[in-house]
Amino acid sequence: MKSDFKFHHELRVRFAETDLQGIVFNANYLTYYDVAWTEYFRAIGLEYKDLIEIGADTVLARIQMEFKSPARFDEVLEVHARVSHIGNTSIIFEFEIYPEGEDRLIGSATSLYVCIDPKTLKPVRAPDDLRLLIGRLEEKDFSQPVN
Amino acid sequence: MKSDFKFHHELRVRFAETDLQGIVFNANYLTYYDVAWTEYFRAIGLEYKDLIEIGADTVLARIQMEFKSPARFDEVLEVHARVSHIGNTSIIFEFEIYPEGEDRLIGSATSLYVCIDPKTLKPVRAPDDLRLLIGRLEEKDFSQPVN
Amino acid sequence: MKSDFKFHHELRVRFAETDLQGIVFNANYLTYYDVAWTEYFRAIGLEYKDLIEIGADTVLARIQMEFKSPARFDEVLEVHARVSHIGNTSIIFEFEIYPEGEDRLIGSATSLYVCIDPKTLKPVRAPDDLRLLIGRLEEKDFSQPVN
Amino acid sequence: MKSDFKFHHELRVRFAETDLQGIVFNANYLTYYDVAWTEYFRAIGLEYKDLIEIGADTVLARIQMEFKSPARFDEVLEVHARVSHIGNTSIIFEFEIYPEGEDRLIGSATSLYVCIDPKTLKPVRAPDDLRLLIGRLEEKDFSQPVN
Repeated sequence: MKSDFKFHHELRVRFAETDLQGIVFNANYLTYYDVAWTEYFRAIGLEYKDLIEIGADTVLARIQMEFKSPARFDEVLEVHARVSHIGNTSIIFEFEIYPEGEDRLIGSATSLYVCIDPKTLKPVRAPDDLRLLIGRLEEKDFSQPVN
Repeated sequence: MKSDFKFHHELRVRFAETDLQGIVFNANYLTYYDVAWTEYFRAIGLEYKDLIEIGADTVLARIQMEFKSPARFDEVLEVHARVSHIGNTSIIFEFEIYPEGEDRLIGSATSLYVCIDPKTLKPVRAPDDLRLLIGRLEEKDFSQPVN
Repeated sequence: MKSDFKFHHELRVRFAETDLQGIVFNANYLTYYDVAWTEYFRAIGLEYKDLIEIGADTVLARIQMEFKSPARFDEVLEVHARVSHIGNTSIIFEFEIYPEGEDRLIGSATSLYVCIDPKTLKPVRAPDDLRLLIGRLEEKDFSQPVN
Repeated sequence: MKSDFKFHHELRVRFAETDLQGIVFNANYLTYYDVAWTEYFRAIGLEYKDLIEIGADTVLARIQMEFKSPARFDEVLEVHARVSHIGNTSIIFEFEIYPEGEDRLIGSATSLYVCIDPKTLKPVRAPDDLRLLIGRLEEKDFSQPVN
């Protein structure tokens, strides 16, 4: 449900993102989630270059996507995003997409990101700054790794 | 020059749109121009479905694109658009892309669109309503075909 | 493991599919799986238009994707595909991607497709012809729905 | 005409590349030309990494594309490519796309690439090796800059 989320990003479906069925091609939802991820970090005060600077790039390790109802050209979509867990090196994001101002679920996803050192590309502990800033938005304490 | 345009649309470069050179992959500029085209028509009061309704879909027949300087991830771009000519069945759009608030030209394009009947897909005269609405934005008279 | 699959399709990574990290952007793997899906059906004797003809279009309802190691520009990839289950209306595909001639797993996915009537878009039983042709490739009996 | 070309690359239209009009979205043709460009260099004996090694990366400076007739999902396309001119720092490619085994022109393009030093990103003279290898395929002498 939308009300479970404190953050969302709006985008409009592009002609280029539709396919011959007249709906958004499924791979494009992964790009939508990626855009929302970037905007989530901007919302907590971190641009992509800041993530690199504090020594924490991330890589997507796993994603589960559900396709519930089709989105169409020119629709404005709300891509809701939240962090549900921060482990030692991992961050779990949850996403839900709705048409602007509607409750019809278009799709959802759960993504597992791993924090890596931008130089060695090896997993590193999610930085305290990141835990603090995400916790502030989500109104949760992410200072200790969960599970 | 930006000042030659009465309309522009802003968009932010997505991670997905960059390539291994760290810059926007050239085919994505064509998508940016397409997005600006859609927004231009929205600005004059016509959504895509309105174009279909007044019996005038369009197809892109030709485009010339120039690549002047690279755009990068997370940059906000201004895609400026204007109609320079309306022939009997054709519409010529001109586009220029700049970083938000800067005068560094990233790319430009000139596109030739042909109005077609959505059912027969045959070229049709650009409708008077279209000429009127575009003329209103551009402050020019497009009621008579040019050349 | 590659040896678990009776079918694979090869494709070469395009420049357009890389991102600023110098590797394939994650959404493009979903397109790779989609391409392999089309080629799998071609391998069993069904082109996309045949699926429509026998009254069984399909929609992707869910996918789980794992990203194991990066693929890079110009690499030839083997996208292995198999059907693991056919339910009443559902078909489960499993995919694994490897570099040509190597055993390094790049990514894997499990996809749930639902057969739908191309006209009503409502779920329909996976047709017997489809069960037979898939069973022939996989050397398994899919004539009865599995759970 | 096809017979004007000594090289072509075949590719099959992907579902992801179609749009709601049921045809290939126009920006994807630019990707097709880019793929053919890569394969052209492979055909003369140069992989992308070889271009970097001989000190000649290239950037696309300008392209003119014409859209003649639509390509559709699952069609196999022949993307024909040739080099028509090599200037001091520039290389002009011409492209034409046809359905496999047909003479119906789908699209054409003329592209101007500029050779750049991979480190300084400044224009450099097109290397002699490149002139020689292209000349061998095209059966023309490109050793001296044209125009």
